[in-house]
Amino acid sequence: MADLHGVIPPLLTPLHADGSIDVESIHRLVAHLTEAGVHGLFPLGSTGEAAQLTNTQRRQVLEAVIEANQGKLPILAGIIASSTASAIEYAEEAHQLGVDAVVATAPYYYTYSQPEIIAHFRQLHAAVDIPIVAYNIPSMVKMNLDQKTINTLAQEGTIIALKDTSGDVSATRGIMLACEGIEGFHIFSGLEWVSDIALEIGADGLVPGIGNIAPADYVAIYDAIQNGDLETARHHQRRMIELFNICYHGHSQASYSAGALGGFKTAMQLLGIFETRQMAAPMTTIPDENVAPIREILEKLDLLPIEA
Amino acid sequence: MADLHGVIPPLLTPLHADGSIDVESIHRLVAHLTEAGVHGLFPLGSTGEAAQLTNTQRRQVLEAVIEANQGKLPILAGIIASSTASAIEYAEEAHQLGVDAVVATAPYYYTYSQPEIIAHFRQLHAAVDIPIVAYNIPSMVKMNLDQKTINTLAQEGTIIALKDTSGDVSATRGIMLACEGIEGFHIFSGLEWVSDIALEIGADGLVPGIGNIAPADYVAIYDAIQNGDLETARHHQRRMIELFNICYHGHSQASYSAGALGGFKTAMQLLGIFETRQMAAPMTTIPDENVAPIREILEKLDLLPIEA
Amino acid sequence: MADLHGVIPPLLTPLHADGSIDVESIHRLVAHLTEAGVHGLFPLGSTGEAAQLTNTQRRQVLEAVIEANQGKLPILAGIIASSTASAIEYAEEAHQLGVDAVVATAPYYYTYSQPEIIAHFRQLHAAVDIPIVAYNIPSMVKMNLDQKTINTLAQEGTIIALKDTSGDVSATRGIMLACEGIEGFHIFSGLEWVSDIALEIGADGLVPGIGNIAPADYVAIYDAIQNGDLETARHHQRRMIELFNICYHGHSQASYSAGALGGFKTAMQLLGIFETRQMAAPMTTIPDENVAPIREILEKLDLLPIEA
Amino acid sequence: MADLHGVIPPLLTPLHADGSIDVESIHRLVAHLTEAGVHGLFPLGSTGEAAQLTNTQRRQVLEAVIEANQGKLPILAGIIASSTASAIEYAEEAHQLGVDAVVATAPYYYTYSQPEIIAHFRQLHAAVDIPIVAYNIPSMVKMNLDQKTINTLAQEGTIIALKDTSGDVSATRGIMLACEGIEGFHIFSGLEWVSDIALEIGADGLVPGIGNIAPADYVAIYDAIQNGDLETARHHQRRMIELFNICYHGHSQASYSAGALGGFKTAMQLLGIFETRQMAAPMTTIPDENVAPIREILEKLDLLPIEA
Repeated sequence: MADLHGVIPPLLTPLHADGSIDVESIHRLVAHLTEAGVHGLFPLGSTGEAAQLTNTQRRQVLEAVIEANQGKLPILAGIIASSTASAIEYAEEAHQLGVDAVVATAPYYYTYSQPEIIAHFRQLHAAVDIPIVAYNIPSMVKMNLDQKTINTLAQEGTIIALKDTSGDVSATRGIMLACEGIEGFHIFSGLEWVSDIALEIGADGLVPGIGNIAPADYVAIYDAIQNGDLETARHHQRRMIELFNICYHGHSQASYSAGALGGFKTAMQLLGIFETRQMAAPMTTIPDENVAPIREILEKLDLLPIEA
Repeated sequence: MADLHGVIPPLLTPLHADGSIDVESIHRLVAHLTEAGVHGLFPLGSTGEAAQLTNTQRRQVLEAVIEANQGKLPILAGIIASSTASAIEYAEEAHQLGVDAVVATAPYYYTYSQPEIIAHFRQLHAAVDIPIVAYNIPSMVKMNLDQKTINTLAQEGTIIALKDTSGDVSATRGIMLACEGIEGFHIFSGLEWVSDIALEIGADGLVPGIGNIAPADYVAIYDAIQNGDLETARHHQRRMIELFNICYHGHSQASYSAGALGGFKTAMQLLGIFETRQMAAPMTTIPDENVAPIREILEKLDLLPIEA
Repeated sequence: MADLHGVIPPLLTPLHADGSIDVESIHRLVAHLTEAGVHGLFPLGSTGEAAQLTNTQRRQVLEAVIEANQGKLPILAGIIASSTASAIEYAEEAHQLGVDAVVATAPYYYTYSQPEIIAHFRQLHAAVDIPIVAYNIPSMVKMNLDQKTINTLAQEGTIIALKDTSGDVSATRGIMLACEGIEGFHIFSGLEWVSDIALEIGADGLVPGIGNIAPADYVAIYDAIQNGDLETARHHQRRMIELFNICYHGHSQASYSAGALGGFKTAMQLLGIFETRQMAAPMTTIPDENVAPIREILEKLDLLPIEA
Repeated sequence: MADLHGVIPPLLTPLHADGSIDVESIHRLVAHLTEAGVHGLFPLGSTGEAAQLTNTQRRQVLEAVIEANQGKLPILAGIIASSTASAIEYAEEAHQLGVDAVVATAPYYYTYSQPEIIAHFRQLHAAVDIPIVAYNIPSMVKMNLDQKTINTLAQEGTIIALKDTSGDVSATRGIMLACEGIEGFHIFSGLEWVSDIALEIGADGLVPGIGNIAPADYVAIYDAIQNGDLETARHHQRRMIELFNICYHGHSQASYSAGALGGFKTAMQLLGIFETRQMAAPMTTIPDENVAPIREILEKLDLLPIEA
């Protein structure tokens, strides 16, 4: 994990119409991403609906991703758990299955103080012998991981990286500067609209949900920034912002999350990678009549296979 | 469950110093509550730190409460799960263990729409043959159960009761009026400072966390309101508001929740009912130097045993 | 102001169709309230759209209310100002016009600390020789007046009363208990759905916006609680909760506030007291097609004049 | 206003110890900024404590800035008003005094719908013949100006520019793309830590509060980005992030705003530009013992005059 970098998409979790895990589609997804040149795989994140899966389903997803990957890319397993005890259980299992690292949120039912969040990561680190990436996503977890919290955990070696989806690029930059001297500490951005910028100001990589659909564009952004070719990076970034319009065609009664993740899954179905666009309960699946506008967006961006 | 009513405390979860479930203290707790005349037992709620326990620990708590209860009081098991699938698993297990009902929150990692929350309760109801109480606690879950949502679920028989801990008594009253004609639907209040009021305006019962410590006071409030004796109700209610001061002696680095639940557990230890005041990770346990002010409050309210 | 008590409605501000102050309607409003037996008049509160009026318009409202009142009832002028300096200017003007007290919010553009909020009230008190009522309305002002802040200001005599519209009845009760021993300190509730309860647990009076329309019902609630007649209080309280349904017929593009205050104004127009239902900019006025459901609610509650 | 661009700092408002406007310090401030090469002056913004000044004081500030400027730079006057009516009054006055444009927030006491916010800007535009810049600052105003709102107002010519201080660079970028084809529409960023980035992705200019202290650094960032010299831009940007540490030395009882603006004023006093560091009520002024760490930061960045 010493050179963790690049595009590490948070994998969507394809489901059969009955809600069970669709292992074949996972294999197609891993192939799709690997062929595009991504640098790692991150199953069981927020994009992967991890919080909506049972423990059995989580395990099935990890096993399928590991089998499909055949040891090619580093695998980072999401640990979205409402308690320290569950986080340890999930991480231990992921470790035994053989993933390379875990990406763990703060616990999220109660509201915790920053020292309690630090305690959470320390206990996870003490309990399981696996590298930990801290996952900051206050829109879901209610609490932000403060700069001082990240700095403390990074300095002492409890975490090897941060995945920041706080939405506040100024804060991410502050963390980058504060952690600059820390050997082997990496910062990843989960913001899909400012990936080019995040890389420019020093991020080591990207965790773009929409990268499930268009991984080649995100790899192109990453490569372009490494080569100082801002124009190419801007071109692909703009395509991705346009692609994001697939997120606004959810069921009229659905939450924003169901519309966004549902738009992603619908695109994957149109690409022929997923068999269905089924969401895990209780999220509402995109209705038939809302598929056409998503297809149009993909067509406009030349993302559909020729015969589709 | 047709005549669900009265004082149904959300049970604290006593732990050994190593964090494991303290079954003997659970037995003493159940005896303490039963002797005071409470009308039901509600393990695995927010007060019971359910979100911080492993699945194994949850099961141990339920088994201990069921064994200690010996079939005397109705048992309502908390279902605090971040997904519909997990909620169904937990409810199925609780059902097989033999509890009388479950008290379920909305799922709480993502932000859901009200129709999705309705879908969650309907799927839980379809999957497990057990009465469901809806548990409204937006401070933890992020989303409120709207009046229309409650009304829909109550009308169709998906839920038999509501436990409202929204903090907005006006809203609770609106729900009471809106659900007035629904046969067999019950409303419980989780607000410890206005229990007398909630009962006066029509609540069927109370779910007071601080009732772990002073169940007799809450039973007295309930009985007094039934008898139209407002003065007695006010007297005990005031005692309880004063008792609430035990919540403000947490560790200086702890969250409010850790201080409040920690204050409860410290009181239980001082009463000789709990062996320790240990909190589940990552909450901070009350330090030794903060015990004295909690003892003083208990003494002032004559809640400590004579020899203490 | 030593015996401030009872029903003190926050007066709506009637406007002509061109947005100018409708002085004649103010006279009819004051007569309507006085005849119903209210105990005071509170112009320029949130219900009065004070924050949407110019300084000139505020003055016109005060002058009209003072003239209409003819010295009969105490007048409390709202001071909704985003700064201490403006609050002092408004209070000085109100004092010179001859009102009996002012009802002042915290300043509300920046987010202030509690000590800064205390400083605000102290400076207002030092600058203008008029009794001050603190107005707690965090939904508008962003900040809550904490129990300790209220207690400090009450103890030292900076404020003579609190008008609490925080929505948290538990917190109001905590303030009541904390301020119990303070000579001459009064607490008023701004919550229209739990007026009976607020009075039962010790409030000195009510500030109900919907009392513009049905002041006699609120006076009946107040009198009934004084006489220990809970049944009568409950009856009128229920009518008022039902009346509140006039708040849900705003323009489809309007904010909640515009719908609620617009519903109030529409009712006043239907009662023949206001000439128009015009809102101050930028709030949207209730469209013609939304008047009928409001009329129905008034009719059902027998609030319309016989010939209407 | 057709070529509005560059660094337009929001001017601090220097006060005498008695809280009155310090006109001489305003003259020194305008000279300091002009000499550094800024492209415009923006008095009466949030940084200028506009919401804490009386109408008379606002006018004094504008007059002093206009006099000091001698027609050299465009002046944009802040219009921070809680109502449409007051915004029109302030804008009319600013127009008569001769400023070049106004920078107006949404009204901010009530919570408004987006159509009501659109109505606010349209009424302001219809009433006063002066170019309007929309000022998006949801942390103060509670409401965000949505992309569609900005787009509508820009398309129809109601506003000529946006000053975005929403903190969400992704959203700013979305607005930039959505408004790309609109002739003469400009976007300014109020985010001091990502100024270089904002310019890179298409912002026309910057409105940095901390630019009061170090205007030359922000001008250097602007020039470097124009010249494609990212390295120089990064260098100055990093200095500015470091300079931001002056914001964390407020009085222990003060709000964050009082600490940040107080830190700015303390720096200006140390630079010999402001006579005092006095804050307007009710913000707490920085105490003497907190000046030293601010001086150290300035020294480390070589911002103090040689003899200081």
